[in-house]
Amino acid sequence: MPYVNIKITKEGATSEQKAALINGVTQLLHDVLNKDPATTFVVIDEVDTDNWGIAGEQVTVIREREQT
Amino acid sequence: MPYVNIKITKEGATSEQKAALINGVTQLLHDVLNKDPATTFVVIDEVDTDNWGIAGEQVTVIREREQT
Amino acid sequence: MPYVNIKITKEGATSEQKAALINGVTQLLHDVLNKDPATTFVVIDEVDTDNWGIAGEQVTVIREREQT
Amino acid sequence: MPYVNIKITKEGATSEQKAALINGVTQLLHDVLNKDPATTFVVIDEVDTDNWGIAGEQVTVIREREQT
Amino acid sequence: MPYVNIKITKEGATSEQKAALINGVTQLLHDVLNKDPATTFVVIDEVDTDNWGIAGEQVTVIREREQT
Amino acid sequence: MPYVNIKITKEGATSEQKAALINGVTQLLHDVLNKDPATTFVVIDEVDTDNWGIAGEQVTVIREREQT
Repeated sequence: MPYVNIKITKEGATSEQKAALINGVTQLLHDVLNKDPATTFVVIDEVDTDNWGIAGEQVTVIREREQT
Repeated sequence: MPYVNIKITKEGATSEQKAALINGVTQLLHDVLNKDPATTFVVIDEVDTDNWGIAGEQVTVIREREQT
Repeated sequence: MPYVNIKITKEGATSEQKAALINGVTQLLHDVLNKDPATTFVVIDEVDTDNWGIAGEQVTVIREREQT
Repeated sequence: MPYVNIKITKEGATSEQKAALINGVTQLLHDVLNKDPATTFVVIDEVDTDNWGIAGEQVTVIREREQT
Repeated sequence: MPYVNIKITKEGATSEQKAALINGVTQLLHDVLNKDPATTFVVIDEVDTDNWGIAGEQVTVIREREQT
Repeated sequence: MPYVNIKITKEGATSEQKAALINGVTQLLHDVLNKDPATTFVVIDEVDTDNWGIAGEQVTVIREREQT
């Protein structure tokens, strides 16, 4: 009965991509640990780029610099 | 000083229902472990049905199938 | 299909008390939101008092002061 | 490679304030534990006041009472 | 820069199985969302069966019943 | 009433270092957002290096390579 939480920045992941993450993680837990998909939860959190920091900076700032 | 995080799908829980969850969990922790309500936190996360998977499928897909 | 995470300090909660928390939270989600117990997960984390802080202090320190 | 999650109520934190939290926490982990900022993540969750409870009450209710 | 948290019951997952989960999830995020493995974190929490509940029961109790 | 969760690898952080993290984060939230320390929680999780992955590898493996 695994619980998986995936946190990504909110940068346009489509419903199809989310479905692929959910299916892929569920399959992985079945393959590696024989976990039952029926009781495997996957929760995806999409986080505003203003609210995610790496290296002391907001991702918003990093993305702006990448584009220039 | 417990911290409780409740994750549910975003499917229309009312403010009154959230208040009932908060009050109920706080009371439970007091009854079972004698925890002080004054320092008991309860945080409710409502997750989009596209972002919650069970059995390898998005809840959105499961809900659509249930209605047909 | 709710997921509930309860964090408490590791101060001797018994297996019976944990069972009471699990059962109580599951029942509460059924009563308030009609959630199916079969797909309600409750995970309890017991945190060392050195690793939990409130008001800027470790709980270990607070507990020592309370006993004197 | 620390991961830090900061949960606050959604009550108008500005982008500058979030940047200050991200920078401050990253610096703190470097100062105290010599953690490399390049692999330090900080994620801020802003929680609706209806969804945060303390002392068995929603913060929304507490805030209303404080203003009267 | 995804962050993934996998919670499973502590029932003897080997270091090799954990490595397979870490590698598999990191690969999945690269395949589906083109996320850079260099800044993909995966954290596995192994939870005591006394501390994990489903359907209102501790997994410890469920496992005992399964074996009889 | 912020809640902060700091996850680090279990590599020998001392009680004094944990106290410094707790005090520093609590102070930061007061300085930046005027949050009351009395209701600021900080929880530190120390994760086994086998259970933390970055770039698709366990930290255990990365640490071994660093020492050779």
